[in-house]
Amino acid sequence: MAYIKLPTAAELGREFPGIVGLMTFRPETAAPINELANVLLRGDSTLSRGERELIATHVSWRNDCFFCQTIHGAVAAAQLGQDEKLVQTVKTDWANAEISPKMKALLNIAGKVQQGGKYVGEDNIADARAAGATDLEIHDTVLIAALFCMCNRYVDGLGTWAPEQLDVYRANAARIVENGYSAVTESATAMVTS
Amino acid sequence: MAYIKLPTAAELGREFPGIVGLMTFRPETAAPINELANVLLRGDSTLSRGERELIATHVSWRNDCFFCQTIHGAVAAAQLGQDEKLVQTVKTDWANAEISPKMKALLNIAGKVQQGGKYVGEDNIADARAAGATDLEIHDTVLIAALFCMCNRYVDGLGTWAPEQLDVYRANAARIVENGYSAVTESATAMVTS
Repeated sequence: MAYIKLPTAAELGREFPGIVGLMTFRPETAAPINELANVLLRGDSTLSRGERELIATHVSWRNDCFFCQTIHGAVAAAQLGQDEKLVQTVKTDWANAEISPKMKALLNIAGKVQQGGKYVGEDNIADARAAGATDLEIHDTVLIAALFCMCNRYVDGLGTWAPEQLDVYRANAARIVENGYSAVTESATAMVTS
Repeated sequence: MAYIKLPTAAELGREFPGIVGLMTFRPETAAPINELANVLLRGDSTLSRGERELIATHVSWRNDCFFCQTIHGAVAAAQLGQDEKLVQTVKTDWANAEISPKMKALLNIAGKVQQGGKYVGEDNIADARAAGATDLEIHDTVLIAALFCMCNRYVDGLGTWAPEQLDVYRANAARIVENGYSAVTESATAMVTS
């Protein structure tokens, strides 16, 4: 049970988990949050969708947000050949993960952002550039990490509930991969208001 | 100088400061960030615009983000009878500020969110309810605090530049009070691309 009273789908007798429940409570703020996630995680980019979801997952793991690290980890895996082992390694030990040197440099920056903006130093940026990262990739990495510092706090600061079963996340991840972030929230909101 | 190359207005020979410079670099992400700020800080609410800007300012001060705490502090002051002394007290010592018990309970929650979502406890929520806060006010407080944990990291994680002179912030605050967040960025972007 979240700290505030969220809409429930009376016919299902349940509360939507994590950020989805909060988004059914406040659609006015849900829309720009989902738009920002769609642009950063699914829009045109020289980073693959899987790579960008790995950044979101690593930051959410660092913030100890079970809901976010599990759903974005499932989305990342779905976009990386269902490689759940890789996702787990990127959470806890990215330096030894089978990812490109550029991704390692970007995950290093993301981890600094999680601690606080001022933890990112010119040397971290230089390392990313040396590994081939563009200014846009560096920008988006910082903003993805910052976005998840927002979402993780939103989800846990209001005490939302999260399912424990990984299969629930795998099924939701497939819907996100297919339809994007806005569509998933809109369908939950429609279920509440219908 | 920011860590990445931002657009400059060639005719002015300058870089836009703080988040505004970043927004001229990436208008696709600027739009939803500004929309979220407009809904939370300027949309319909039983919290005044000045009260909501105080929450943004306190969190930005806690994150040691000079640009954000100074511009949102100036916006808060502009909406609270130019009371810059009150804004300063809310940054550093809100428990002794001349604000309502409800605002104190909400600032307490915002400070917990700044540390991490899991720092918010049911007791903090109960204190806010006892002081008269509604579920929507509690929700928006958590999301405003979380939003500024994102913006502060975005601004400092990319090493943006910030003016030192308070009069610059007072002038920009007046424009924000008049026109909102999206308009200010759009006019900066137009200046760069014109």
